[in-house]
Amino acid sequence: MTHTTTYGLLIFEGADELDFVGPWEVFTTSSRARDDADTVVLIAERPDPVRCSKGMRVLPDHTLDDHPPLDVLLVPGGRVEAQMANPVVIDWIKRTAAEVNWVTSVCTGAFLLHEAGPARGRRVATDQEHQDELEARGGVTIVRDARYVVDGNLVTSQGVSAGIDMAVWLVGHLRGRDHARRVMYHLQYDPAPPYQADEPL
Amino acid sequence: MTHTTTYGLLIFEGADELDFVGPWEVFTTSSRARDDADTVVLIAERPDPVRCSKGMRVLPDHTLDDHPPLDVLLVPGGRVEAQMANPVVIDWIKRTAAEVNWVTSVCTGAFLLHEAGPARGRRVATDQEHQDELEARGGVTIVRDARYVVDGNLVTSQGVSAGIDMAVWLVGHLRGRDHARRVMYHLQYDPAPPYQADEPL
Repeated sequence: MTHTTTYGLLIFEGADELDFVGPWEVFTTSSRARDDADTVVLIAERPDPVRCSKGMRVLPDHTLDDHPPLDVLLVPGGRVEAQMANPVVIDWIKRTAAEVNWVTSVCTGAFLLHEAGPARGRRVATDQEHQDELEARGGVTIVRDARYVVDGNLVTSQGVSAGIDMAVWLVGHLRGRDHARRVMYHLQYDPAPPYQADEPL
Repeated sequence: MTHTTTYGLLIFEGADELDFVGPWEVFTTSSRARDDADTVVLIAERPDPVRCSKGMRVLPDHTLDDHPPLDVLLVPGGRVEAQMANPVVIDWIKRTAAEVNWVTSVCTGAFLLHEAGPARGRRVATDQEHQDELEARGGVTIVRDARYVVDGNLVTSQGVSAGIDMAVWLVGHLRGRDHARRVMYHLQYDPAPPYQADEPL
């Protein structure tokens, strides 16, 4: 790992918004806290706006055949079926995963890493409602009770919001725990999910 | 409040990505869990792509003068200075806030609600690093130790990730605690921020 890090986040039609925007916010905030040392880019098959899973339209920064060399690859989940059957995207994931230092996924993005190869023979996390389905594809061990799983240079997380925790772990692993805590401070990442108790209104 | 809810999320050059994508994910997931009953839209001054605070480019669904009637207004934070000096946006916030059932903000979005009026004389939360600055503007009570603050129909949250908690609170208030818990389940919103302890690596 060099002194700077280039993070490439794949996006595609049906990618879930928070799956990639959560890590995007963590990685860009980490870069800001390091005098903008790092680069964080969105990469798609085509340069057109991508319509995400819940309808948000986002513009990619680069296409699959025109992006800077990456240190970290992130593959979000969402509606992944079409991409699992898309050889252009699957081949790109396979080639890119072989070149980067870290391969990561959020939610059902693990299905794309399985299809492309990097998740084969590894311990992975995925969306809790799709664990059996991924296991049935074979050649992969599903860790069911971990929010994210680090197996060598492969880091996979459970659904949607779990990508934030995984991304914080990664920037802490790369730049230190104190740095990760600064990032959490900037994001005020001190979560307080409501309705943990049933109390009189 | 009718049986369906239309959520309008303002975006602008420099709006922070997670400030609005966190609530977007919560509101759209809430709608999905209700057979797509609700509508969630991004609204900007112009129809062009908006470059957010950390560089992500997002397309609005509507412009300020061409959007459906809203039930909930959300104003994100980020680089808000230019918008505080933009009478078109400030006037729109003022008019829209008078028409909706709920007025909400995330992070420094509270500065825009203060400039436009809805936060005047109210108890509000804002980004922890900008609390003194908002207080100094006068006519507002800063609640410093709450992740989000409900004062009448005004709901304001602290920085960035706090918008997720606020949005979950709102869908639970509108549709019930069990519904909010289903939304959290779909988002796997059971956060586990890393590096809470200092332990040997």
